[in-house]
Amino acid sequence: MKLYSYFRSSAAFRVRIALNLKGLSYETVPIHLLRHGGEQFAEQFVRLNPLSLVPVLEDGGSVLFQSLAIVEYLDERYPQPPLLPSDPLARAYVRAVALTIACDIHPLNNTRVLRYLVRELNVPEPGKDAWYRHWVEMGLGQLEKVVVSSGRSGRFALGDQVTVADVAIVPQVFNARRFECKLESAPTLVAICDHCMQLDAFARAQPSAQPDAE
Amino acid sequence: MKLYSYFRSSAAFRVRIALNLKGLSYETVPIHLLRHGGEQFAEQFVRLNPLSLVPVLEDGGSVLFQSLAIVEYLDERYPQPPLLPSDPLARAYVRAVALTIACDIHPLNNTRVLRYLVRELNVPEPGKDAWYRHWVEMGLGQLEKVVVSSGRSGRFALGDQVTVADVAIVPQVFNARRFECKLESAPTLVAICDHCMQLDAFARAQPSAQPDAE
Repeated sequence: MKLYSYFRSSAAFRVRIALNLKGLSYETVPIHLLRHGGEQFAEQFVRLNPLSLVPVLEDGGSVLFQSLAIVEYLDERYPQPPLLPSDPLARAYVRAVALTIACDIHPLNNTRVLRYLVRELNVPEPGKDAWYRHWVEMGLGQLEKVVVSSGRSGRFALGDQVTVADVAIVPQVFNARRFECKLESAPTLVAICDHCMQLDAFARAQPSAQPDAE
Repeated sequence: MKLYSYFRSSAAFRVRIALNLKGLSYETVPIHLLRHGGEQFAEQFVRLNPLSLVPVLEDGGSVLFQSLAIVEYLDERYPQPPLLPSDPLARAYVRAVALTIACDIHPLNNTRVLRYLVRELNVPEPGKDAWYRHWVEMGLGQLEKVVVSSGRSGRFALGDQVTVADVAIVPQVFNARRFECKLESAPTLVAICDHCMQLDAFARAQPSAQPDAE
């Protein structure tokens, strides 16, 4: 397998965690999102993924994209250990946690979005930083309430089982720390992240452990 | 079942389509996203969904949120007709199409995001409109290439089978039309939307057919 990845991309981070949890080995193809005006816009990459986004996974001759679709694919194709529980309501909870990060927090703070704010809308640097922190702090604060009020969390978002929820939580907490967001309103999510990082599959997936890390 | 919905919410539109496709009847609880400073911020609703977002589905005593998690839940709990194919690669394709809309296009144009641009970052009205159109036009143009180059599309995103991809495409095309976005670069997606709208399940789910339509 080949993973087109950028060490700091939190969507690529999700897929790296899932691959490690499944015990699958893969080759990293680094796509630098900032260098050369963004390698994700190079003709060869756009032919692979017209969305110009990492991650992209090649499995055999197949090309897969969108991190959560890739994670679900890996879970169906390589079922052990499972990343989703079997009960439909627990599955919905776990997916909702992952989607809250993947839809409502992360996309607002993508490189391309921050670039548009500054270049097209002339938002000054402090405004851009406030935007970043606003969505992360509000989003993680709300998600904390979801996880706590579900009564389902333990060491991980779903008791003591690692699921796709944790696969999404860890990279988002990493981003929040990197941009010095306040995390006081999300102690459970931070604890889940710290528990995950004690596992080899998560530790090996982190940005600083990647071959393209700077 | 009870669906907390807003007639114009495209996330709620997705769930309405899925409920109709499954032949499930439900009661609509209107949550007006603009009136009274936003009914999604009212204490009672926040207790139901700390994310302050519609849709929320109540099924028996269970509370579900995040539109794509709800659609997957409905598909698992009420399997006929299926909204996902059985082949893992086809499932990944269909989910990737839905996630491209749910993660990379729609969240940037949410009511709360547009409000933040105007109120907090002082972006003037024309800048806000340009932002809206930029993400929709770029996003749908890229997604068009994904769908066409997949070689999988037919009347619908996956041949002649209605899937979760179509459930996501239709509300996004509706939004694009309402905000007068250019759709020349997405003819296949527009045709898929038009084919879908010939089906009763889609037609009954559209904003103008809702009890809270204005």
